[in-house]
Amino acid sequence: MVNSRTAVLDSVRQMHWEDRAVPEPGRLEVRVRVKKVGVCGSDVHYYTHGRIGGFVVEAPLVLGHEVSGVIDAVGEGVSGLKVGQRVALEPGYPCRRCSYCKTGHYNLCPSMTFMATPPVDGALSEYVIWPEDFTFAVPDSISDDAAALLEPLAVGIWAARRGGLKPGDTVAVIGAGPIGCTSIQAAKAAGATTIIAVDLEDFRLDLARKVGATHTVNSRGLNAVDEIRRITHELNGLPMSHAGVDVAFETAGSVPTCRMSLEAPRPGGVTVLVGLPPAPEVSLDIVSAASRETDIRGIFRYANCYPTAIALVASGVIDLDALVTHRYAFSDTQAAFEFADAEKKTSMKVMIDVS
Amino acid sequence: MVNSRTAVLDSVRQMHWEDRAVPEPGRLEVRVRVKKVGVCGSDVHYYTHGRIGGFVVEAPLVLGHEVSGVIDAVGEGVSGLKVGQRVALEPGYPCRRCSYCKTGHYNLCPSMTFMATPPVDGALSEYVIWPEDFTFAVPDSISDDAAALLEPLAVGIWAARRGGLKPGDTVAVIGAGPIGCTSIQAAKAAGATTIIAVDLEDFRLDLARKVGATHTVNSRGLNAVDEIRRITHELNGLPMSHAGVDVAFETAGSVPTCRMSLEAPRPGGVTVLVGLPPAPEVSLDIVSAASRETDIRGIFRYANCYPTAIALVASGVIDLDALVTHRYAFSDTQAAFEFADAEKKTSMKVMIDVS
Amino acid sequence: MVNSRTAVLDSVRQMHWEDRAVPEPGRLEVRVRVKKVGVCGSDVHYYTHGRIGGFVVEAPLVLGHEVSGVIDAVGEGVSGLKVGQRVALEPGYPCRRCSYCKTGHYNLCPSMTFMATPPVDGALSEYVIWPEDFTFAVPDSISDDAAALLEPLAVGIWAARRGGLKPGDTVAVIGAGPIGCTSIQAAKAAGATTIIAVDLEDFRLDLARKVGATHTVNSRGLNAVDEIRRITHELNGLPMSHAGVDVAFETAGSVPTCRMSLEAPRPGGVTVLVGLPPAPEVSLDIVSAASRETDIRGIFRYANCYPTAIALVASGVIDLDALVTHRYAFSDTQAAFEFADAEKKTSMKVMIDVS
Amino acid sequence: MVNSRTAVLDSVRQMHWEDRAVPEPGRLEVRVRVKKVGVCGSDVHYYTHGRIGGFVVEAPLVLGHEVSGVIDAVGEGVSGLKVGQRVALEPGYPCRRCSYCKTGHYNLCPSMTFMATPPVDGALSEYVIWPEDFTFAVPDSISDDAAALLEPLAVGIWAARRGGLKPGDTVAVIGAGPIGCTSIQAAKAAGATTIIAVDLEDFRLDLARKVGATHTVNSRGLNAVDEIRRITHELNGLPMSHAGVDVAFETAGSVPTCRMSLEAPRPGGVTVLVGLPPAPEVSLDIVSAASRETDIRGIFRYANCYPTAIALVASGVIDLDALVTHRYAFSDTQAAFEFADAEKKTSMKVMIDVS
Repeated sequence: MVNSRTAVLDSVRQMHWEDRAVPEPGRLEVRVRVKKVGVCGSDVHYYTHGRIGGFVVEAPLVLGHEVSGVIDAVGEGVSGLKVGQRVALEPGYPCRRCSYCKTGHYNLCPSMTFMATPPVDGALSEYVIWPEDFTFAVPDSISDDAAALLEPLAVGIWAARRGGLKPGDTVAVIGAGPIGCTSIQAAKAAGATTIIAVDLEDFRLDLARKVGATHTVNSRGLNAVDEIRRITHELNGLPMSHAGVDVAFETAGSVPTCRMSLEAPRPGGVTVLVGLPPAPEVSLDIVSAASRETDIRGIFRYANCYPTAIALVASGVIDLDALVTHRYAFSDTQAAFEFADAEKKTSMKVMIDVS
Repeated sequence: MVNSRTAVLDSVRQMHWEDRAVPEPGRLEVRVRVKKVGVCGSDVHYYTHGRIGGFVVEAPLVLGHEVSGVIDAVGEGVSGLKVGQRVALEPGYPCRRCSYCKTGHYNLCPSMTFMATPPVDGALSEYVIWPEDFTFAVPDSISDDAAALLEPLAVGIWAARRGGLKPGDTVAVIGAGPIGCTSIQAAKAAGATTIIAVDLEDFRLDLARKVGATHTVNSRGLNAVDEIRRITHELNGLPMSHAGVDVAFETAGSVPTCRMSLEAPRPGGVTVLVGLPPAPEVSLDIVSAASRETDIRGIFRYANCYPTAIALVASGVIDLDALVTHRYAFSDTQAAFEFADAEKKTSMKVMIDVS
Repeated sequence: MVNSRTAVLDSVRQMHWEDRAVPEPGRLEVRVRVKKVGVCGSDVHYYTHGRIGGFVVEAPLVLGHEVSGVIDAVGEGVSGLKVGQRVALEPGYPCRRCSYCKTGHYNLCPSMTFMATPPVDGALSEYVIWPEDFTFAVPDSISDDAAALLEPLAVGIWAARRGGLKPGDTVAVIGAGPIGCTSIQAAKAAGATTIIAVDLEDFRLDLARKVGATHTVNSRGLNAVDEIRRITHELNGLPMSHAGVDVAFETAGSVPTCRMSLEAPRPGGVTVLVGLPPAPEVSLDIVSAASRETDIRGIFRYANCYPTAIALVASGVIDLDALVTHRYAFSDTQAAFEFADAEKKTSMKVMIDVS
Repeated sequence: MVNSRTAVLDSVRQMHWEDRAVPEPGRLEVRVRVKKVGVCGSDVHYYTHGRIGGFVVEAPLVLGHEVSGVIDAVGEGVSGLKVGQRVALEPGYPCRRCSYCKTGHYNLCPSMTFMATPPVDGALSEYVIWPEDFTFAVPDSISDDAAALLEPLAVGIWAARRGGLKPGDTVAVIGAGPIGCTSIQAAKAAGATTIIAVDLEDFRLDLARKVGATHTVNSRGLNAVDEIRRITHELNGLPMSHAGVDVAFETAGSVPTCRMSLEAPRPGGVTVLVGLPPAPEVSLDIVSAASRETDIRGIFRYANCYPTAIALVASGVIDLDALVTHRYAFSDTQAAFEFADAEKKTSMKVMIDVS
């Protein structure tokens, strides 16, 4: 067995390379030769800040949790996957035995093992070991890049599912970064026919429109909520008090957008908090939201979204390759992180080629 | 006011023309100048048999309940519609006051008034009076033909809603007539990525594929359920005992297809009975369905589907014009019915131009 | 026809009596001889402040919206109610024609007519006219007091429904006033087996226990959330991070209880905001709620809860008479309001006998 | 380690005793000293027929799957259970890794291991090994008998859940045997206020009333569906066409009751098939059911019902001890089976004391 070349984060903006031994897959596990790893905002945040909330990088950590690859070896009992098969990894696996796991809410399992979350290593490594049941075969119609990006798409699908999206719905997606775009794609796949993307950058709004937004609003010097109300008022024919979208998705993670996302839905609508503001405490007009019966629902990762994501991408309903704007070789991993940090406004998804 | 030229069914295959007085719209009612009326299987059945189940044509009856037109006059209190506006009519309205109406299930209201169902007249007439709240403005992106066909699309949407369709689902649509095709369109709009159409006629299967079927099965001399199992087994990777679609729609209304629709779903799947076999009693393997937790759900018309249908057609997600294969002038109404009866296998939707 | 003696609020703490003409019931309306009217916190608030949020008492207003009575006359078309029948009034009726009404969400109808909400008069009058479909016959097993209190019970039932309560659930009810108590009763009727009531007054907690609370917590000098976590941790056997109730109901309408209600649920649980804090903007740890997938759901009145309330009280599952602590004659209406304002801590429900 | 005395079924009505070695619990497993085992209809059917459908007793089989006991030893990694703790066993465990398990539908897992279903042995043995996550601690408020009967209660809870029961619902339970009675108990716990029990035996109906039925109908020489319609028509005030219960449960497993259960619900109601007729093919008026939108839902065992069952019994909402009519010593196991087979009409639940 060759070694597994691995990019390791030591501390803020400090990485080094290691050649780690490649372990054998255990019972019901597979070994995957990693091909592509997408750079996620959370990876960049660990790289630039060394922590996210209570999760602190105290020991060297391997980043990367948007992963595609090829089955390299299979452990005892593996029956559904074969060496050479192209796969995507769902980057977290639960205990499978608690009440959350048994009821289908495994994303809330208290014993989750999730890649690139201290102290669990991620996938910026040539080889990773992973349980078979969270490793998904992908058909040839899904590229290696797209297979890695099933992860942010899973977030968008979970957001749409939590929002209770139905065909014909009107939607606002506030923040048109990678998660905003996959939320748009998931909303469109669920039949939303009016999708209003809001952002401060035209570069992002142009891409949002390309992947499914029907309206774009640059909120620089414009009241985005007024725009959302104007558009939906024309559509639903109800009084202005009842204008608003069926579902608003907050994906920008700032206080103003969080407030905006509570004002965007119609009475009886839903706000899905996908991004999270940097400070925990946010002053919100909770009275108005509550008395309009606007539900506020957060999301924590996702559950059972990979099969849906694969079906939607394989069938051509969703195009994930459209989101990749920049590519780096594995050896340039640190440059990829620096770029993703510096050029957020002019890039969408940065991919690292580990193969 | 001119008279309203009207086609009247007297008895089996007997029609005559009348010039009826055109009443004024009452409070919260509108008068519509009819433009297009689609010929539905139920219209043809009244024409050829004089009855459907317990509904018997005992007095002269006007047929037609797939209707588009233009607002010709508005009654007192009408605020949402204006003369000259293009509209589609939802052809049934309920009491608005019983427990079914209050809970959103108005299709089951015991006091429904539904067009072309004895003794309520339908829309094969130049002018009809209808309540404002069941008359829907349509944008210019929806043609007059398509506006009339929102009615069968509403059936498909209701079937999809009753089936609980989700993005990425696998679906079988058994019977590829007009309702089969709108079920396919509604399933696709809801995100179904595998849609298997089953019929005995290649003409219909070709059109089914055009509007969204990903697989077609001509069940002449082929076990369609075996095909459905084969296709889905390849997709879900579970044992053959767990092959099958997420949702099967029966739209052909025969005993064999009814039985087929119970065998097509995977354990935990759903059968939606859209068509109805001619005899009420059907011998079914209810034990197998029950012990696999395959839910069996019928549909009775629809509720709250017109806004969804309009959104989906206006946005271009669904193309209803593709279903129109034959057109007749209003003066040739009887010929249209004879044709629709005789050429079911080589036609999809027959439209009558009342304007 | 005799006149209808009526208590009218002119301005803050100013009431006068009027003898109003009693109109005839119109089509599908009934006239009700009022028997009992419960005093609600919102009535008291109009009495003491002259407004609730944007609703301002600008003209003389009749208060009272918890109403029982007897059918005194019926209008044209009324078929389900007869003179002499004992009834309860659901105090708001909607337009019956908008998308909210058609889909079963009539509580959010933009054209609601709701008693004792300016400018609509309430029921502190000998006779009221009301639509038949929002007037409910009650059996003899429901007293006149209880029939009036179906209104606050409807709020509790709606809260339980919005919370998605299931048999065996654990529940915290924060605030044990009248709405807290009906929330407890509704939760118990829905099968909740652990019901933790939190309040500052032992008088209220004692009554809460009488009507269904299994645990009571006086939050004076005690961290109620810690108590809730301790109790639920013992029950569910998960780590402390996953302690918490399935559903928390906030019924006290203060900022601290609002914050408490967001901390009380387990991950994946629900907070139902029944009360509303006095200031619209509340600083909340929305990040924690969102990342634990604790849904936040407000309520605005209720829809389709009267039939449920009647079934539960008639069958003996819920005892509303237990909530009545004080009774006043109609002529002492103003005294009743003064008492309800002054003695909130030692009273639960104050009833006015209009008959 | 002592041996584990075990009752073994060889063939129809042939049993022998064995002293089996008691294995050590493996990782995440516990060893349970069995205390009580309830005799289920399926156990009796294997005893009298040697098969149930496709499941055939081809090798000696241990019966019994309604089981309570005490933890006797714990395997590696067990953290939630201790030696000496009183427990109930959920008698089936799934693969924990397939799509059914991940989504909370583990009862439909293709790799289920279920006690007393060939070739898996049941619990009529002094010691059994079982996975920790399907072994539930019970509080002292639940007796050993009741702990064993959590199993049939789980069936009733699953039936109620599948029926979508809500507080205030009307229910018919057709068949008042043990599963009929636990369905009644589960329905009552979910807030059903009208519960009509139907059976041919007054002995069973009396017990049904004791555990929650509000009406009983002996269908010997009486049209039970007419009775159900009469009772519900009086309650809901709708036309006779819309009489019927919200949810009908079929628990008798015969063709006539199966047909009855389809006629009992109101339009928009639900039929839950809990029992199964002996022949797979049943001739049913599917047209009527479908066009009334009466959903037909079967059940296959249950998922995630034990915690609910424990909460309901521990809190006193449900009394399972009331169902035990006869008790046998372990040494009289065969007599217990013969009795349960012969005296179905005069017994409810037969318990075997293994301790």
